[in-house]
Amino acid sequence: MEEHRLSLRMSTLVFTLSIIIIVLSYPAQPLALNHSPKFLGKFAATARTHSNSEPPPQFHYEKRYFQQRLDHFSFSELPTFPQRYLISTEHWVGPHRLGPIFFYCGNEGDIEWFAQNTGFVWEIAPRFGAMVVFPEHRYYGESVPYGSAEEAYKNATTLSYLTAEQALADFSVLITYLKHNYSAKDCPVVLFGGSYGGMLAAWMRLKYPHIAVGALASSAPILQFEDIVPPETFYDLVSNAFKRESFTCFNYIKQSWNEIASTGQTNNGLELLTKTFNLCQKLKRTKDLYDWAEAAYSYLAMVNYPYPAEFMMTLPEHPIREVCRRIDGGPAGTSILERIYEGVNVYYNYTGEAKCFELDDDPHGMSGWEWQACTEMVMPMSSSQESSMFPPYEYNYTSIQAECLKKFGVKPRPRWITTEFGGHDIHATLKKFGSNIIFSNGLLDPWSGGGVLQNISESVVSLVTEEGAHHIDLRSSTKNDPDWLVEQRETEIKLIEGWISDYHQKNEAMFDM
Amino acid sequence: MEEHRLSLRMSTLVFTLSIIIIVLSYPAQPLALNHSPKFLGKFAATARTHSNSEPPPQFHYEKRYFQQRLDHFSFSELPTFPQRYLISTEHWVGPHRLGPIFFYCGNEGDIEWFAQNTGFVWEIAPRFGAMVVFPEHRYYGESVPYGSAEEAYKNATTLSYLTAEQALADFSVLITYLKHNYSAKDCPVVLFGGSYGGMLAAWMRLKYPHIAVGALASSAPILQFEDIVPPETFYDLVSNAFKRESFTCFNYIKQSWNEIASTGQTNNGLELLTKTFNLCQKLKRTKDLYDWAEAAYSYLAMVNYPYPAEFMMTLPEHPIREVCRRIDGGPAGTSILERIYEGVNVYYNYTGEAKCFELDDDPHGMSGWEWQACTEMVMPMSSSQESSMFPPYEYNYTSIQAECLKKFGVKPRPRWITTEFGGHDIHATLKKFGSNIIFSNGLLDPWSGGGVLQNISESVVSLVTEEGAHHIDLRSSTKNDPDWLVEQRETEIKLIEGWISDYHQKNEAMFDM
Repeated sequence: MEEHRLSLRMSTLVFTLSIIIIVLSYPAQPLALNHSPKFLGKFAATARTHSNSEPPPQFHYEKRYFQQRLDHFSFSELPTFPQRYLISTEHWVGPHRLGPIFFYCGNEGDIEWFAQNTGFVWEIAPRFGAMVVFPEHRYYGESVPYGSAEEAYKNATTLSYLTAEQALADFSVLITYLKHNYSAKDCPVVLFGGSYGGMLAAWMRLKYPHIAVGALASSAPILQFEDIVPPETFYDLVSNAFKRESFTCFNYIKQSWNEIASTGQTNNGLELLTKTFNLCQKLKRTKDLYDWAEAAYSYLAMVNYPYPAEFMMTLPEHPIREVCRRIDGGPAGTSILERIYEGVNVYYNYTGEAKCFELDDDPHGMSGWEWQACTEMVMPMSSSQESSMFPPYEYNYTSIQAECLKKFGVKPRPRWITTEFGGHDIHATLKKFGSNIIFSNGLLDPWSGGGVLQNISESVVSLVTEEGAHHIDLRSSTKNDPDWLVEQRETEIKLIEGWISDYHQKNEAMFDM
Repeated sequence: MEEHRLSLRMSTLVFTLSIIIIVLSYPAQPLALNHSPKFLGKFAATARTHSNSEPPPQFHYEKRYFQQRLDHFSFSELPTFPQRYLISTEHWVGPHRLGPIFFYCGNEGDIEWFAQNTGFVWEIAPRFGAMVVFPEHRYYGESVPYGSAEEAYKNATTLSYLTAEQALADFSVLITYLKHNYSAKDCPVVLFGGSYGGMLAAWMRLKYPHIAVGALASSAPILQFEDIVPPETFYDLVSNAFKRESFTCFNYIKQSWNEIASTGQTNNGLELLTKTFNLCQKLKRTKDLYDWAEAAYSYLAMVNYPYPAEFMMTLPEHPIREVCRRIDGGPAGTSILERIYEGVNVYYNYTGEAKCFELDDDPHGMSGWEWQACTEMVMPMSSSQESSMFPPYEYNYTSIQAECLKKFGVKPRPRWITTEFGGHDIHATLKKFGSNIIFSNGLLDPWSGGGVLQNISESVVSLVTEEGAHHIDLRSSTKNDPDWLVEQRETEIKLIEGWISDYHQKNEAMFDM
């Protein structure tokens, strides 16, 4: 295995305003939403550096590359690929003092974006004397096989090694290599991860217990498979996040879908919608508008942070509150569609810079997460007639399968994740085999419904915050942090300290023997 | 996944007398032995049905086939292959009474051979009301991809999916399917395995803890990797098994290698050796004779059972005792080579049926285990000048790698097993994450040196027998069983009963909730 160092190119991030909605056509259900699991969507993939704002000073790292096997579980002759990883040894106290290694399980996007949005790890590293490593997930960012993203995403054959198990093996091999390289064999590794990265961190504890001493798995919906949680969970939680701000707002949104549909069916209806929603190109079908609005609501629920943030888009504090304020607040006589436009505008154009909106600026339409959702990450999603503000939709595996075959030429394996990682009996499994895992979830986050929300054992614990959104605990601290968030992070730090001190004690005991 | 039933073709076993020694040439060390890890060698692969003797009446099973993916960890478009499995529901009390599923982790050979030589599982199944399943390991027996063994073993590309991780995934997928098919979702699965199969059973506990409730891993040298145990361990233990019978015998063997070498260097020396050892073809080089004798000693140590057995060869009780009796016992003036011939004859021709000996009857020379030893199962082996009766040999990874590249066109991954399954810290890992594993080892077995020989926790226990050989506990009981063996099996039964009763209690508690 070979490693290349790149000169440090300090970079910061801005998120393109381009809105990228995955347009899948459902001929049988023209008005259904695109109910594929939605983590960070293409935001992660399209995160770009930004020259306006300097990064927080603690984010110093080197970029390096490690040559990984494309298939860890066979001996096929395949090209290796360079896995990028960001590394900082600035605060590491070194192997002699058994300085810990903080290892973020990179998820579906550019690793620099995650590094910048995972300030918690950088902030606590000095306190722990820890090395910090952010490895990129294969097939994302620069860590693509076959020389380029274009080649890697060419077809089902080139994409076929984009799986969670391969990613976990990448992490394990990289950690083993780093420990060897830094003479850090006995240094404890602590895993971090948010969202899909949190799933990876938790699964690492089950699959590679010998590799790390613990994991903070933030907003990790490891139960969002098969029938473990009801398929309505996600959209119900999104809907609840609006309902709790304003029942009127919830109702306007719930009514809006029919308004859009009936408007779209009138003469010049699509033109009218194009104008009302200030779209750059003429709307081709109402479904595209559905998807655009649905994405806004779903992402809003995920990033419903109590302070202004720029995770996916530039947004105010409590963004759903602001959306509902605008939806509810128009003068008497404001139409539902105008209200919706005002609301969605908060998400897509809070800065006011957008002249008009592109519903889909990615004609290639092949993103890594879509592939993963079409292969292993089959997360059933329905929208309930009663409790959801979205158009009713019943999860239909057959149509998902047909879409995946059409789009990628691949057949999903909907039962594989639970076979490989468990799920139905996850409490029993974690209780007996898991240790040192924090499952943190904010109940505002629609992904929390697929998360582990109960303490499992003394060392597999659940931290649930009423007001938390998608892995808010992993973000940098701000002066606006509410008390519960400050406390949550302190609890996490104490738990991690406990893992490391346990480890040190056992290690010393071993040396004494 | 599709399943085909075959009509029950009851078959029994006989082992061909053909002696198959893997001939690797070590140009730089012409007199070194073939120090690749030696489990059952090709005996497993060449086990054939035999019409003379009927199988024990309790071995009733159906043969079925389950279509498995060739690569579980990618979405490459590859042909599926039929995994054969033997199944008996004769004594199963069914799903309503949560009848357990006894699942033998098939290892490197024809599964019928293992089924016949794992009488313990069949004998105890009625007592537990258990279903019995013996799945075949991929690439062995009839469970070969690409339509035929010839195609499957064609080259490194076709062989590349012969890995332990893929085999474990096969087992997990098959168990999940069987549970579904028999409405047996809540029925506890107990894993069994001997030798490499024991390693798989133990690793299943670490990698798929949600799939089974416990494992009996008999003679499973999961520590025989990298530098976890000294590389001299295996040959030292073989040597000790001879030394404990007779120091003279040990010494004759230790001296014999130079005798063979110096005889081979004389005029007509190879002819003389051919005659002395009653070989069918003229000996081409002394190394072949070395390997032939070394295999006999190593296998003898493995099957050094206290009663007559036919596991690999037809052998008397305490076969090493008999070998040494013959080596030591010749009249005064008997040469060392004559003594050695008499001794080795016990192993290769106890029945007296062989007219002459073939050193290598497999010119193709591609066996599954050789492939595994050249890829993942890199088990370092040395022979110590002081303590071993074999020619001194220092483990040399570079030459192993060169041989594997030459033979299969594949480069071994000597650190992969410990990255994937752990090893260096296996005690800590098993203590924290393992549960319900019995590691049983007989100290006469040379593989015991790489086994887990200490109790790890309350439920990860080690059963060590002074007089036991290679997974003797898994064999059918006989009227000649010594007391310690009867007791060992009783202990195993009690432990398994404990796992199942724990499981039932937890299951009921769950239902009560």
